[in-house]
Amino acid sequence: MRVTLLAHTPEPERLIASAAKLCYSPVGIDALREGLTDGAAAEFVGMLAELGHESPIEHITFTFGIEGVSRSLLAQLTRHRMASYSVQSQRYVREGAFDYVVPPAIAEDAQALAIFEGAMQQAQQAYDALGERLGQLQAEALEREGLSKKAAARAAGKSAIEDARFVLPNACHTKLICTFNARSLLNFFSLRCCNRAQWEIRALATEMLHLVRAVAPSVFGTAGPPCLRGPCPEGKMTCGKAEQVREHFALR
Amino acid sequence: MRVTLLAHTPEPERLIASAAKLCYSPVGIDALREGLTDGAAAEFVGMLAELGHESPIEHITFTFGIEGVSRSLLAQLTRHRMASYSVQSQRYVREGAFDYVVPPAIAEDAQALAIFEGAMQQAQQAYDALGERLGQLQAEALEREGLSKKAAARAAGKSAIEDARFVLPNACHTKLICTFNARSLLNFFSLRCCNRAQWEIRALATEMLHLVRAVAPSVFGTAGPPCLRGPCPEGKMTCGKAEQVREHFALR
Amino acid sequence: MRVTLLAHTPEPERLIASAAKLCYSPVGIDALREGLTDGAAAEFVGMLAELGHESPIEHITFTFGIEGVSRSLLAQLTRHRMASYSVQSQRYVREGAFDYVVPPAIAEDAQALAIFEGAMQQAQQAYDALGERLGQLQAEALEREGLSKKAAARAAGKSAIEDARFVLPNACHTKLICTFNARSLLNFFSLRCCNRAQWEIRALATEMLHLVRAVAPSVFGTAGPPCLRGPCPEGKMTCGKAEQVREHFALR
Amino acid sequence: MRVTLLAHTPEPERLIASAAKLCYSPVGIDALREGLTDGAAAEFVGMLAELGHESPIEHITFTFGIEGVSRSLLAQLTRHRMASYSVQSQRYVREGAFDYVVPPAIAEDAQALAIFEGAMQQAQQAYDALGERLGQLQAEALEREGLSKKAAARAAGKSAIEDARFVLPNACHTKLICTFNARSLLNFFSLRCCNRAQWEIRALATEMLHLVRAVAPSVFGTAGPPCLRGPCPEGKMTCGKAEQVREHFALR
Repeated sequence: MRVTLLAHTPEPERLIASAAKLCYSPVGIDALREGLTDGAAAEFVGMLAELGHESPIEHITFTFGIEGVSRSLLAQLTRHRMASYSVQSQRYVREGAFDYVVPPAIAEDAQALAIFEGAMQQAQQAYDALGERLGQLQAEALEREGLSKKAAARAAGKSAIEDARFVLPNACHTKLICTFNARSLLNFFSLRCCNRAQWEIRALATEMLHLVRAVAPSVFGTAGPPCLRGPCPEGKMTCGKAEQVREHFALR
Repeated sequence: MRVTLLAHTPEPERLIASAAKLCYSPVGIDALREGLTDGAAAEFVGMLAELGHESPIEHITFTFGIEGVSRSLLAQLTRHRMASYSVQSQRYVREGAFDYVVPPAIAEDAQALAIFEGAMQQAQQAYDALGERLGQLQAEALEREGLSKKAAARAAGKSAIEDARFVLPNACHTKLICTFNARSLLNFFSLRCCNRAQWEIRALATEMLHLVRAVAPSVFGTAGPPCLRGPCPEGKMTCGKAEQVREHFALR
Repeated sequence: MRVTLLAHTPEPERLIASAAKLCYSPVGIDALREGLTDGAAAEFVGMLAELGHESPIEHITFTFGIEGVSRSLLAQLTRHRMASYSVQSQRYVREGAFDYVVPPAIAEDAQALAIFEGAMQQAQQAYDALGERLGQLQAEALEREGLSKKAAARAAGKSAIEDARFVLPNACHTKLICTFNARSLLNFFSLRCCNRAQWEIRALATEMLHLVRAVAPSVFGTAGPPCLRGPCPEGKMTCGKAEQVREHFALR
Repeated sequence: MRVTLLAHTPEPERLIASAAKLCYSPVGIDALREGLTDGAAAEFVGMLAELGHESPIEHITFTFGIEGVSRSLLAQLTRHRMASYSVQSQRYVREGAFDYVVPPAIAEDAQALAIFEGAMQQAQQAYDALGERLGQLQAEALEREGLSKKAAARAAGKSAIEDARFVLPNACHTKLICTFNARSLLNFFSLRCCNRAQWEIRALATEMLHLVRAVAPSVFGTAGPPCLRGPCPEGKMTCGKAEQVREHFALR
């Protein structure tokens, strides 16, 4: 997994503080902004975070590049609808020799790993064989419709992978660019940094949290699972490890 | 694929007509509604559709049950963010003997079908073997933590499938319940009933369109790909079959 | 203020329970629904509400007719973006003799009421006078462009109110139809039924809560301000009246 | 009206081009970005705009400071739900001597202007008188509850304006900070730069368009009313001035 912060709103904390102060102030926008030192902005934003006033933090957005994650993760991630996604398409991009995610519990055990890697090879072989056979069938059909042999082969290659991908596994790598505003991120971190979240999306969320904390520490200082801010809301389903979780997410 | 309309807003066209008339009328809501016969509502809604005034149609919603579709389709469907989804989880539901979608182009050719079904069997075997091995490892770990053999086995079985599912293919069946409002549906139909859309989601969209047309014909009378309402917007990428498409989606 | 529930998803609690159960069940949708008595659905939905699992309740929607509220309220209400609105337009609908909201604190004091009603009369007079003058100016302009006296007068009357409405007060009545799903409603009730919310939108939210509780008691049983479900989150800003609030919103 | 661009995503066109290319490319994100000169990014973004592929432009956001606009405009603007708003509150900020918008058609005619300014003065007087009377009543009530004269007066002053604002006119100035992504802006410009839109929001939208065109010309080169990109969709309701409109919005 490789996660990078590709872009974000400049001076994010000053922008949030200006927007929040505007709601309760008769002063003009320029004067508000000039009156805000970085320190004052950070302090004000920290106070908003504590009060749970989330609406002003929508003004800042963060764009992430994410590579080397599984299609399973993608399915979970894109359920967060308050975000924008551009995802590498399996319909259009042929998987020459596809990369894949190995779950840690599998990587740690030779027997499980052997089963897993065998399955990946079989999937690759089936994908290649299907791509070839479907490509051949489609090329023949296109030639019957009057295309030249060469043009038919090219067009067919493209559309064959659309159906061949049905054999590709959940583990298959994908990459994407996504943009969240800070309010949507807080919600995402609250759900997905939790110890009960699935391991891959928890790893992604934790990495994203570290990246945004570096540029907006007052906004994300207490971001993460709910147990950072109060008692665990999961009742009987709690992981029971709030202490370690708190330590893990402590601001460095 | 099995698609059913589980629920929808009652008297959808009268509700839309009331909401739209309200914007331009000094009359009260009760009087507006009483003055609307079913015929008058349908006619008014048809006029809104022609003018492209979409905001009043947001008031009506449709809930679909969808079964026997692939995980590939799910990934495409859930990219439509103006909708609500409840999806069967591969994290929690073990795939005893998983069902799968066979793409038509594969089903039609014995050689391709043999490759495909072989791949499905291999995936099932790897899934079962991984589930067993991971379950055994986790049970051992839980026993070392002090759980009884029986409790450990049960807990382990649950978490093992979470990682085993990484070998499951895109073709794997899933089921879901989703709710769209009519405006979001129009957008969905415009993109996904198009001849250039991938075959599985096009089949789903077409089926959904038939279901909603039956209960709100004036709202969805011209719904479908853009070529039903004007020239194809795809330029050089056009399928070139607007005539057949128009016939296919003609109101019966 | 007059609030009516114009429409809602039929059998709302059975739909929610079906959607929620689907996520964790290998059973088909029909079988799931058939296995759900009304009592079982209600119980299951109550459990979801306690666990805070909100995503399945998005499947049910509620449409309200709202009349006799102020333009101030409208400004607050439409800030809730997860909803659909159709609002009577001041641009198109002439205010013959506009109705208005009198805040209770003003209605209770003869002196304040006199000031207030005087202001309403002055606003009405200015609105009428401006409409007339602007209409006359515009009619003259249209006649110079070649329209007949009659056509010019009619066209001018329409556009004159667009500018005349700038003198209309916040108190001015408006009416609207709006649709929320249950998840968005829970958020709305949490913020706007709170004792610290402004009195008019609190009255509206409370009325809406009573209407939806009657049709989906298990979904909305603990809906309302946060103090119904735990300690007040407002810190020093608390109203300090959680006891009365709880009594007020208790299920009857 | 004063509109400023307070912040935007840095290097907006390179980000969009990277996101769009990713969907159809096997190459990694870093390599994609490095391969993009500013010129190549601009050209690619222009091509996306022509094809109407809007999803990648969601990744860039723009934050505006807006001052000196009417409450009427605010009501129209906040109906655009795909945006984030922080608005000066009339509940909390006392209008010492409120500023107001004068519609041009009124400013141009002495008689209309006299009526209008009279109405503004009457509204201000009623607002002040109500604030004073309500403040006095509330202070008395608070003193009866045991507060000191001074504390009572201060608390009362705050809550009195909440009801006094019911007499304030639509023309009353407000200020706000709002953030839109580029896709939502395109929709906003399409609706609100149109000659048939109300004059004040048209002026705002036009100003916003000029500001974003300066930083992302390829994204917004053909942004504006639909008649910039094809025939007017308003049918009989057309303004009939597409030629002038096109000239007005031509890239300089």
